[in-house]
Amino acid sequence: MQFIDAINFSFPLLASTTDTADSSMVVAAVLLSLVVVYLASKVGGELSNRVGLPPVLGELVGGVIIGISVLHLLVFPEGGTDSSSSLIISFLQNTAGLSPQAADGVFRTQSEVISVLSELGVIILLFEIGLESNLKDLMAVGIQATIVAVVGVVAPFAAGTVGLMTLFGIGAVPAIFAGAALTATSIGITSKVLSELGRLNSKEGQIILGAAVIDDVLGIIVLAVVASLAKDGEVDVTKVIYLIISATTFLLGAILLGNVFNKTFVAIVDRLKTRGELVIPAFIFAFVMAYLAAVIQLEAILGAFAAGLVLEETDKRKELQKQVIPIADMLVPIFFVAVGAKTDLGVLNPAIPSNREGLVMASFLIVVAIIGKVITGLTVFGQPQINRLAIGVGMIPRGEVGLVFAGVGAASGALSKPLGAAIIMMVILTTFLAPPLLRFVFPETNTVATDSEQLILDGASAPSLTIETPQLLVSKLNDPSSLESGADSQDS
Amino acid sequence: MQFIDAINFSFPLLASTTDTADSSMVVAAVLLSLVVVYLASKVGGELSNRVGLPPVLGELVGGVIIGISVLHLLVFPEGGTDSSSSLIISFLQNTAGLSPQAADGVFRTQSEVISVLSELGVIILLFEIGLESNLKDLMAVGIQATIVAVVGVVAPFAAGTVGLMTLFGIGAVPAIFAGAALTATSIGITSKVLSELGRLNSKEGQIILGAAVIDDVLGIIVLAVVASLAKDGEVDVTKVIYLIISATTFLLGAILLGNVFNKTFVAIVDRLKTRGELVIPAFIFAFVMAYLAAVIQLEAILGAFAAGLVLEETDKRKELQKQVIPIADMLVPIFFVAVGAKTDLGVLNPAIPSNREGLVMASFLIVVAIIGKVITGLTVFGQPQINRLAIGVGMIPRGEVGLVFAGVGAASGALSKPLGAAIIMMVILTTFLAPPLLRFVFPETNTVATDSEQLILDGASAPSLTIETPQLLVSKLNDPSSLESGADSQDS
Repeated sequence: MQFIDAINFSFPLLASTTDTADSSMVVAAVLLSLVVVYLASKVGGELSNRVGLPPVLGELVGGVIIGISVLHLLVFPEGGTDSSSSLIISFLQNTAGLSPQAADGVFRTQSEVISVLSELGVIILLFEIGLESNLKDLMAVGIQATIVAVVGVVAPFAAGTVGLMTLFGIGAVPAIFAGAALTATSIGITSKVLSELGRLNSKEGQIILGAAVIDDVLGIIVLAVVASLAKDGEVDVTKVIYLIISATTFLLGAILLGNVFNKTFVAIVDRLKTRGELVIPAFIFAFVMAYLAAVIQLEAILGAFAAGLVLEETDKRKELQKQVIPIADMLVPIFFVAVGAKTDLGVLNPAIPSNREGLVMASFLIVVAIIGKVITGLTVFGQPQINRLAIGVGMIPRGEVGLVFAGVGAASGALSKPLGAAIIMMVILTTFLAPPLLRFVFPETNTVATDSEQLILDGASAPSLTIETPQLLVSKLNDPSSLESGADSQDS
Repeated sequence: MQFIDAINFSFPLLASTTDTADSSMVVAAVLLSLVVVYLASKVGGELSNRVGLPPVLGELVGGVIIGISVLHLLVFPEGGTDSSSSLIISFLQNTAGLSPQAADGVFRTQSEVISVLSELGVIILLFEIGLESNLKDLMAVGIQATIVAVVGVVAPFAAGTVGLMTLFGIGAVPAIFAGAALTATSIGITSKVLSELGRLNSKEGQIILGAAVIDDVLGIIVLAVVASLAKDGEVDVTKVIYLIISATTFLLGAILLGNVFNKTFVAIVDRLKTRGELVIPAFIFAFVMAYLAAVIQLEAILGAFAAGLVLEETDKRKELQKQVIPIADMLVPIFFVAVGAKTDLGVLNPAIPSNREGLVMASFLIVVAIIGKVITGLTVFGQPQINRLAIGVGMIPRGEVGLVFAGVGAASGALSKPLGAAIIMMVILTTFLAPPLLRFVFPETNTVATDSEQLILDGASAPSLTIETPQLLVSKLNDPSSLESGADSQDS
């Protein structure tokens, strides 16, 4: 499709031939990137699944292998990388006649497009998670989730900050930054693993999901506090109040308005007669919500999650879920592979002196990161049968959220290189450890079919949802007692 | 998701805060653009459908309304437009605190992302069309399709070139360029309308589709000839031979290899156990084929179409079709709305003097464009019952393909402004007239259920395919005789 650029009718003399060539090369580069991303996600996901781990871990590792750490197939310019270190761009230069002068532009555009696609991927993921969740179930565990979230913010923050100051003699501001990075929880990774384990709708899953959402909002507030602290030496109280009010208004507003809107939505959808009559209105709603959430300085994914929750209340839920599955299958892997590809394992290399200093601090941060979240499970009250360990473990992965703190901290100049590297090591390890740990603390599926399992039974896209069944059967055969405890942990 | 840019771990000091802000704004701009695109496509498509026209016409018109011609919501920098004339960017500046300095960068990236998404949209569309077509049916009408394509290239080219030279006194090179622009046929628009009318698998539909594919390949060769003629005054014979050989090799190779590959594909898919086990391998294959086609200077869409044809031969066809539907519903409208948005109706304004001169030439070109393609239907032999008029009309829309000629011609300096405007007017009118004309020459649906109609009966996403049923029932009630001729025209 080298045609598109020529479609404008205003005849930019000569400009259009170069535009045309570039545009065709951008599409070729994006197609090639998607092929590489999909190969990495499928090979990684399947291998991970074969050894009994959640597929998403394989997608992350697949991303690491094609990314900046190993093969350099998919790299991004934000890390200071230029087009000459992207193997995909070199490949295009050698096979498709991409000119060296055009390489930088094509590289930048291709990276931007893949980044936006990966962000659309996590927006669709959270929309799908919202569609699979139930607002009433989430509200029912609201207080427990809030306590888990607050403890999961306060405990690692306090332990991390105080520990760094006293044990390592770090200054207050950098220690606070590192402490803040410890507070994050990655909704994306946690919810995807829960969904893969078929545990999203268990009581544990709902508490984890609710707590992760609240944690995300708290994290945004904590980030605003520490960023203004690092910049001006004092806290921007106005901004903090603004964030608290806007976050609360948005989430409550979405839920209240949603109750009115979902009837309008069904009425509109029922009147539409052309293709996409369900999925397009749903995406208009989801993208408007995501846009609003992004604009009020919350996150786009929170808006998409809220939109999913609202539409879950409609009788279009089942049909919409089915239609969103292939779209999510296409876009979500781009997110996880891109997260992996952007992960530079170089910080883990002990041969580099600053890493060695960082490694000691990293070990401390990792211990705090794990213990500080695992103890949150102990705070859950009124649920005698609940798997407290699973809840704590579910809060462990810092994922992309933890990295924002590292990025903002580094940008503000508050973090030393070893401390910055230590934070990143902590984020990498908690992110990559959480999926197998979650798999371990949820050792068997529930016997009651969840929503997504129900889809297998009556859905068109059956095989795409049969996750881990062979391993689960094996683990059940090896450990017959797990069948009983399995029934216990699903008392929703 | 202002997080993504911060995920690289190499700490570009300070750079990351501006990157982060921009990246968040790019996502916000893309979300807003998609909301606008989807609203335009749904409102336009539904209104078009209500008045008995193909939805795609409404999507094109919806695009015109939000685009450069009317509302300036979705504009693209290729036309020399800058960020200040994009209403979406102005909106972001007013609501989301986008800084004026960052506006240009966000505008460019947002436009690139929407352009690439629209190109992915037409790639997915042709993949879906390939999945709905049948190679044997296409081969069965291969000779007829080839004759239709060749006559549809030769007749308008000769009439247009000679007419411009003799009637308007235009020089040989510009006249040849204009003649070349008359040869194009837009596979995208033609195949989408046929699919919407449920006629893709009629004999007429297969001949039109086959002829449009061959026309596309011929068009690429014609373009190479006229471009080298305009540049050096002589024809680059080597390039023409290269194109003929590579196109033939690619299409035959795809079909032959496809017969081997489709068994491997099924075997691989059957062994996969994680989500996306069907759609991801299918897209890997489709994108590799699209990439190969683009790299050998054919078009990405031809590769995607070939991939669809190959996978149509497998027993995963039905399931894959169902899963591709929502993905196509999400991406394909972006293509048609973007084509509309990039269409500058300013060239039709007779108040501008150069347009007036152009209008006379345009009237001539439009007559040649329509007659030159309609007569191709007369060349179809051995099909006594066939709707010859429909075949000719199906070849009319020039769409994005015709504009490439205008763009390359303008870039080479060969075309005067009035002649350039005349070509564009011809492209606009043939593109926008073709859907209603096709609707008119195919006045009723066939009584035999086609593949895509079968999907309605057993598919999960039923309502998304119920196209035009009310109008069709009305037209049948008004004209009972159409029921008979309807059965006739479907003698495959």
